[in-house]
Amino acid sequence: MSAPESGGMNSVKTTRRTVLTGVAAAAAFGLTTGTAEAETGGSKIGILLYDGFSLLDPTGPAEVLSRLPGATVTMIAQHRGPVRTDTRDVAVLAERAVAEVNRLDVLLVPGAGTRGTVAAMENPVLLEWIRRVHRHTAWTTSVCTGSLILGAAGLLRDRATTYWSSADYLEKTFGVRYVPERYVQVGKVITAAGVSAGIDLALHLASLLADEETARGIQLAVEYDPQPPFDSGNAAKASPELKALALKLLADSQE
Amino acid sequence: MSAPESGGMNSVKTTRRTVLTGVAAAAAFGLTTGTAEAETGGSKIGILLYDGFSLLDPTGPAEVLSRLPGATVTMIAQHRGPVRTDTRDVAVLAERAVAEVNRLDVLLVPGAGTRGTVAAMENPVLLEWIRRVHRHTAWTTSVCTGSLILGAAGLLRDRATTYWSSADYLEKTFGVRYVPERYVQVGKVITAAGVSAGIDLALHLASLLADEETARGIQLAVEYDPQPPFDSGNAAKASPELKALALKLLADSQE
Repeated sequence: MSAPESGGMNSVKTTRRTVLTGVAAAAAFGLTTGTAEAETGGSKIGILLYDGFSLLDPTGPAEVLSRLPGATVTMIAQHRGPVRTDTRDVAVLAERAVAEVNRLDVLLVPGAGTRGTVAAMENPVLLEWIRRVHRHTAWTTSVCTGSLILGAAGLLRDRATTYWSSADYLEKTFGVRYVPERYVQVGKVITAAGVSAGIDLALHLASLLADEETARGIQLAVEYDPQPPFDSGNAAKASPELKALALKLLADSQE
Repeated sequence: MSAPESGGMNSVKTTRRTVLTGVAAAAAFGLTTGTAEAETGGSKIGILLYDGFSLLDPTGPAEVLSRLPGATVTMIAQHRGPVRTDTRDVAVLAERAVAEVNRLDVLLVPGAGTRGTVAAMENPVLLEWIRRVHRHTAWTTSVCTGSLILGAAGLLRDRATTYWSSADYLEKTFGVRYVPERYVQVGKVITAAGVSAGIDLALHLASLLADEETARGIQLAVEYDPQPPFDSGNAAKASPELKALALKLLADSQE
């Protein structure tokens, strides 16, 4: 990499102070996040990656939870190294192997396409690790079809949510009631609905791990004031044709 | 990795058919996404990664855009290999170096914390590449402070949006008007607001690259029916104290 050219075309000199206005104001308000950090105790948050996961399932929650005072967010997989998404387009690095991780405050299991979900549900190494870590977590959580993996590990009771088109499978396979909400909390297990619901789950988790004010601060920090240009994200309101299209787009993107 | 134990504890046997109900329905409706694919022409979508990027900025749009029929989404950086986020917690692989990529249908530049944003704004290799690729894109886009990088590359005109606390900097540095909307389209340049706004931008882009029905199908595919547990994501409605807290949480998470 060459050094920046001084005075180059459109060269812009700036400083830490100028890009984000208002940072100095935190001091003016006498703000500290020490209370929240003491409450979170520097939460150890672990996210399980496995081949074929859906990209937003772990990354939405990671974005939110990494802003918790003192928290660490670690991507974990059966083996260290790159783990590829369902579309094969993108890979996220697993920083730790499951064998290296025994204790977590929060475990989050993302969802995947059918191939990835089924492989994880049938992988005894992952299921055993999930059960082992779950014994000591404060919260064991999932996004999308990740709840099916929690189910395969024997951790679901009573009620749960999952990806909308996996609701029947969830109920028939694990004998729990599907609840069509963004996240469903039963004891210390919290399951979230499909893909983008992990962001809503993570804000709820932030309020549990720290406090509501901190969660609100994080929501503003990630400017999460959603305004989708369409209103088509709720399966309960979708036509059969739109549901079929959604599933075809998913399946085709994973070929 | 050991082979799955047959009949092991909580072992669940399943098939591709059962996990997602409704996949077969796509055929029943005679659905094809061929029209949309012809329109997108198999869009080549490139996302620029650079040290210190914010995780959700590229991954939210990648999740959405990777569902476009025939589209490819490629993570690109100055050099191939892992690129780490602002918190240093997570790394995403860059699959291509900028020197390997000359043509894209869509370029997306994510945002970062101050360190990452300033470094990118002062990196002549990245700025020159952005300008070069921009000549032939259908859409040149940004999320969060990514618009400041587009500005440093000389690509902003008239109006733009950015991360809420960078609005003053945007206006003073590039002489454009800050518009507090989720995304702002000026010619073929579309800038999005902070972090999570990239998801809204991506759905809009999906409708431009394919059609509205496809974008709605993708919205359902990622179950994007946002229901944040709090209503604190809009800076225009936030108290000075909450803004200061948000910026402190961001700054502390990047230490």
